[in-house]
Amino acid sequence: MEEKQKAVDQVMLDRMKELKVETLYDRYQAQLPQCGYGSLALCCRHCNYGPCNIDPFGNGPKKGVCGADANTFAARHFLRMSGAGTGCHSDHGRAVAHLLVATARGEAPGYRIKDVEKLMAVAEFFGVKTKDRKINEIAEEVGEMALMEFGKPYGTLLFLKRAPEARQKVWEKAGIAPRAIDREVCESLHRTGMGGDQDYRNLTKQAMRVALADGWGGSMIATELQDILFGTPKPVQGRSNLGVLKKDHVNIVVHGHEPQLAEAIVAASNDPDVAKASSAAGAKGVVIAGLCCTANELLVRHGIPMAGHTTMQEAAIATGAVELMVVDIQCIMQALIETAKHFHTKFITTLSKAKIYGAEHVEFTDEHALEAAKKIIMMAIENFKNRDNKKVFIPGGAEPDVVAGFSHETIKYMLGGRYRASYRPLNDNIINGRIRGVVGIAGCTSPRIGAGEESYVSLAKELIANNILVVGTGCAAGQCASGGLMIPELKDLCGEGLREVCEAVGMPPVLHSGACVDNSRILIALSEMVKEGGLGSDISELPVAGVCLEWMHEKAIAIGQYFVASGVYTIFGMNSPVAGAPDMQRLLTKEMEELVGARWAFERDLKKIGKMVMDHIEKKRDALGINVKKERKLYDMAERRALERECKPVSGHHS
Amino acid sequence: MEEKQKAVDQVMLDRMKELKVETLYDRYQAQLPQCGYGSLALCCRHCNYGPCNIDPFGNGPKKGVCGADANTFAARHFLRMSGAGTGCHSDHGRAVAHLLVATARGEAPGYRIKDVEKLMAVAEFFGVKTKDRKINEIAEEVGEMALMEFGKPYGTLLFLKRAPEARQKVWEKAGIAPRAIDREVCESLHRTGMGGDQDYRNLTKQAMRVALADGWGGSMIATELQDILFGTPKPVQGRSNLGVLKKDHVNIVVHGHEPQLAEAIVAASNDPDVAKASSAAGAKGVVIAGLCCTANELLVRHGIPMAGHTTMQEAAIATGAVELMVVDIQCIMQALIETAKHFHTKFITTLSKAKIYGAEHVEFTDEHALEAAKKIIMMAIENFKNRDNKKVFIPGGAEPDVVAGFSHETIKYMLGGRYRASYRPLNDNIINGRIRGVVGIAGCTSPRIGAGEESYVSLAKELIANNILVVGTGCAAGQCASGGLMIPELKDLCGEGLREVCEAVGMPPVLHSGACVDNSRILIALSEMVKEGGLGSDISELPVAGVCLEWMHEKAIAIGQYFVASGVYTIFGMNSPVAGAPDMQRLLTKEMEELVGARWAFERDLKKIGKMVMDHIEKKRDALGINVKKERKLYDMAERRALERECKPVSGHHS
Repeated sequence: MEEKQKAVDQVMLDRMKELKVETLYDRYQAQLPQCGYGSLALCCRHCNYGPCNIDPFGNGPKKGVCGADANTFAARHFLRMSGAGTGCHSDHGRAVAHLLVATARGEAPGYRIKDVEKLMAVAEFFGVKTKDRKINEIAEEVGEMALMEFGKPYGTLLFLKRAPEARQKVWEKAGIAPRAIDREVCESLHRTGMGGDQDYRNLTKQAMRVALADGWGGSMIATELQDILFGTPKPVQGRSNLGVLKKDHVNIVVHGHEPQLAEAIVAASNDPDVAKASSAAGAKGVVIAGLCCTANELLVRHGIPMAGHTTMQEAAIATGAVELMVVDIQCIMQALIETAKHFHTKFITTLSKAKIYGAEHVEFTDEHALEAAKKIIMMAIENFKNRDNKKVFIPGGAEPDVVAGFSHETIKYMLGGRYRASYRPLNDNIINGRIRGVVGIAGCTSPRIGAGEESYVSLAKELIANNILVVGTGCAAGQCASGGLMIPELKDLCGEGLREVCEAVGMPPVLHSGACVDNSRILIALSEMVKEGGLGSDISELPVAGVCLEWMHEKAIAIGQYFVASGVYTIFGMNSPVAGAPDMQRLLTKEMEELVGARWAFERDLKKIGKMVMDHIEKKRDALGINVKKERKLYDMAERRALERECKPVSGHHS
Repeated sequence: MEEKQKAVDQVMLDRMKELKVETLYDRYQAQLPQCGYGSLALCCRHCNYGPCNIDPFGNGPKKGVCGADANTFAARHFLRMSGAGTGCHSDHGRAVAHLLVATARGEAPGYRIKDVEKLMAVAEFFGVKTKDRKINEIAEEVGEMALMEFGKPYGTLLFLKRAPEARQKVWEKAGIAPRAIDREVCESLHRTGMGGDQDYRNLTKQAMRVALADGWGGSMIATELQDILFGTPKPVQGRSNLGVLKKDHVNIVVHGHEPQLAEAIVAASNDPDVAKASSAAGAKGVVIAGLCCTANELLVRHGIPMAGHTTMQEAAIATGAVELMVVDIQCIMQALIETAKHFHTKFITTLSKAKIYGAEHVEFTDEHALEAAKKIIMMAIENFKNRDNKKVFIPGGAEPDVVAGFSHETIKYMLGGRYRASYRPLNDNIINGRIRGVVGIAGCTSPRIGAGEESYVSLAKELIANNILVVGTGCAAGQCASGGLMIPELKDLCGEGLREVCEAVGMPPVLHSGACVDNSRILIALSEMVKEGGLGSDISELPVAGVCLEWMHEKAIAIGQYFVASGVYTIFGMNSPVAGAPDMQRLLTKEMEELVGARWAFERDLKKIGKMVMDHIEKKRDALGINVKKERKLYDMAERRALERECKPVSGHHS
């Protein structure tokens, strides 16, 4: 009974302690106290005059050997983080673009174009001719154009034009409209090399440019092309938590980020040979469960159960019921090799660019995806006999239903109806105050926050109680899903206004929009809200915010930076990555507002963040004038005439 | 008198101490002891679970929070260094490619195509049609093709085909033939992100691939296209050391890496307005002197005097005679801002991607290069009146002549004569033992080595005394130039065999081949030596080595890694960047030999390095069989017949 009240990750931590299986919480404790220089960004290892440290307190050095000061240290580190995060998302996007081309050419037999409507939309946006052309021809050209976004020698990114015009002008004026994605990544490394860019403001501008190349470039390409290949997410029911693993089934956990692997595993699991083999092995079937962002991808598109978010990756293996964990790239802890040794779990890497020392490797390619996937599944089934039932411990009874799959198209459809898809109802409900605003919750989970604290769940509850609609992605969404927040029936927790809207539309107050790469969906949704009208002319005027409570990966910094550079006030929990450099900290948390109309905030006390968000939203509502009760307006004659002109029916087509 | 015996950098250090001007030696001392974790690559800051440290001695943690071990820490750091170094050289190469296109289109009026012969050679290599086409058309297409090398979605780099076939096969087999340059940089960041590639061998392979994208990609593009625009270096006489600054002249120091700035400054200095203005200001003229790799670029193409290598950048300002220092990017210490404040020196940054906090900025573009250059020169002249003569201290009397400009074409011409350019004489002299081998000396200078120790000079002297031909680049070449080693008259220091060759050809025993980006020239020269025949079929069989005694910049790691991956045994002085991870260290210093036929060595004791090089060269000579005295061969009848067939004259064209 007690166990059910404890969060599942806490239960599993206790279990692992019992089994003497080391966890990331143990290793985090062992690292304490963590290096203060590194934590404050007062460490530089960019050249061999160093490593250099800057003493924040008084007597030690204030500069590195080359003379770089704290601001340069911090800004360079911040830019490298932004560049690396962008590199991750973008290299993921590139793989999807290659897959789309291969699929269109018939060279990736395990895949097909699933969402023709989206293909047409992207083709139209790219200026690709669609009339009288075969789907595959169009897809190939779209894929090739997407590939050129990574390396074209001239011009800025095509998807920038999806942003409101006012936003595009902000980027242009600040000189931060990104050129080819890889170029921005490469230049970020160049600028941060020893003796390169040494003006923290200038470095931070490049951090905006490279991050925008993530959000409006690599990530958006990944999301859009994945939708074309695997379908745009639509509301779908699933379940979440380790209890989705089944004692009498062969359990396969797919972990990582790129859906092409997971999709192939799911497809291959329907092969009749699989059922036959699993039955022959004495299992009732095969469970495929996702972990980390792969879980999010599978959940939003197929309702495939989610085993957990990123800090639960060791716990999944520690259930003793996982025959095989198969991974692609990003956020996959090397520690899993050791965890797996305590159990019978096979651990399989699949990409030549992401091997793990000690893992078994089954190379996964676009051309032979299904064969590889089937081979991996058969390895799992084969391994079923090695399961030690005494070690099996699946914390059951806490697998909430989840309704996920809220792409921006879905949100639009749900709000406006299938044939009048529109953000109008959302904007109207924000204007009339039923919904105060919208908050994107994105990010990782971290051992810096105790297991079972469910920080994202707490924040989301606070926000929806205050009539703020929440959109979640990544492991933040994963935690909210496990926390039971993603069901339309969740009425009691909502404020009155939000409840009315959710009831009318039939959607949960916390919307699952996908993986961390899918934060691009939020950018598109915000742009559409602006275009819909009534909430200002730029994203920075919207009563919205972004929050990441437990940031871990460099991707999180890139996401935060592109949110801010897109006009979204963004709060990161725990620690600032530039805390040791006060000017740099002030630049991010204050001065960026002047440049791009939004800023960062860093707040150690997670409990304060809800109030910060709400204050911000009310401030934006005030600025929009939608919090003011309209005074009765007395018109003079001139105004009446103007009013009449405005109301005159226009001839012709009216959309 | 005593001063002349001291090296100039030591003299200037004493002077700066007297003036209480802080130097990088002071800041280096202030950083001691440097962080042991960072020095050993046992620190990881790639995610916010960290910073994590690994204890090399026993009781502390052996893994980061994610479970990454010492090998992963070190290999990730090594790959990021290689990626960043590649990013620097490549982004430089990209700028040159853009300039070539702009010049060809008439959009860069300050520049023109100077070396049509080289343009034709590169065009031919790229498969660009040259017949019946205008120079500018050809140049534009070559430039556009070069730009695509950074971002093309398919295929490997064009210049790889310049390597011996055997070497290309090594790359293919190991899976390290680089694709688009920026892609390799981007993927390197992706793989080194938290939870990505965690197999030190696999990470090191990518470090080879990205580094090859530097040597045979970005750097080679930079070198070749710079030669097209500014002329391929030919032997030219110059002078070196701070004494090139003149008391009665306006002195301008150009510092950094990209020759387009320096070339424009030089061109603009010939404007009649300049002479007029300097005369009006009471100066006898304007001295343009180079520093760091800009110095190397100017020296090898124009014989423009070189003020010094990288650790002398503060010293240049401390002469009190520099009216203005103008910089572009790389190796420019932020400290110069403070140094300049002690004097009247103006400090000017020129690139939007490399500003320095506190500097004056004059934006330099391809389109308006000459205007910007003239403006900068006029600023210097205007500043002449502010010079404080009491502070002027130019350590004169130690400016050796230098003969520089040894591009691989020049070496070929010098050896074989203008109309029979060939490496044949070099190969023959290596085979007959007059020259034992060739060593490339490249790299930075560092405060880890005492000022005035002239490590590169000592090594070069040792090598030429032992009949080893030395080719220098970068600040290593800069030090050798200042050390007086780059004059053909330098007979007494050479071994007998090398002296004979140098006398016959009329070249110095230490050849200056350009900036650090020009190490690509060495790759081409080595490939030509293999193709010439008689010394094996791959670069790895040649009796050659690469040495960097005082590495500092990440570029040095990229260069070292592409040397090794190209088959060149490469020794780095001072410290290994992966010393804390014994497996990783063994991979670089032993196991890489199996993969690519060459390996790294790291040696703290610089005095041992000469012997290491010579042992290696003799080992390679043994393996080639050229150290064996030929036994008298008695032919049997069958062999005689075979011999006759071989000697039969072939019909047709014989080249």
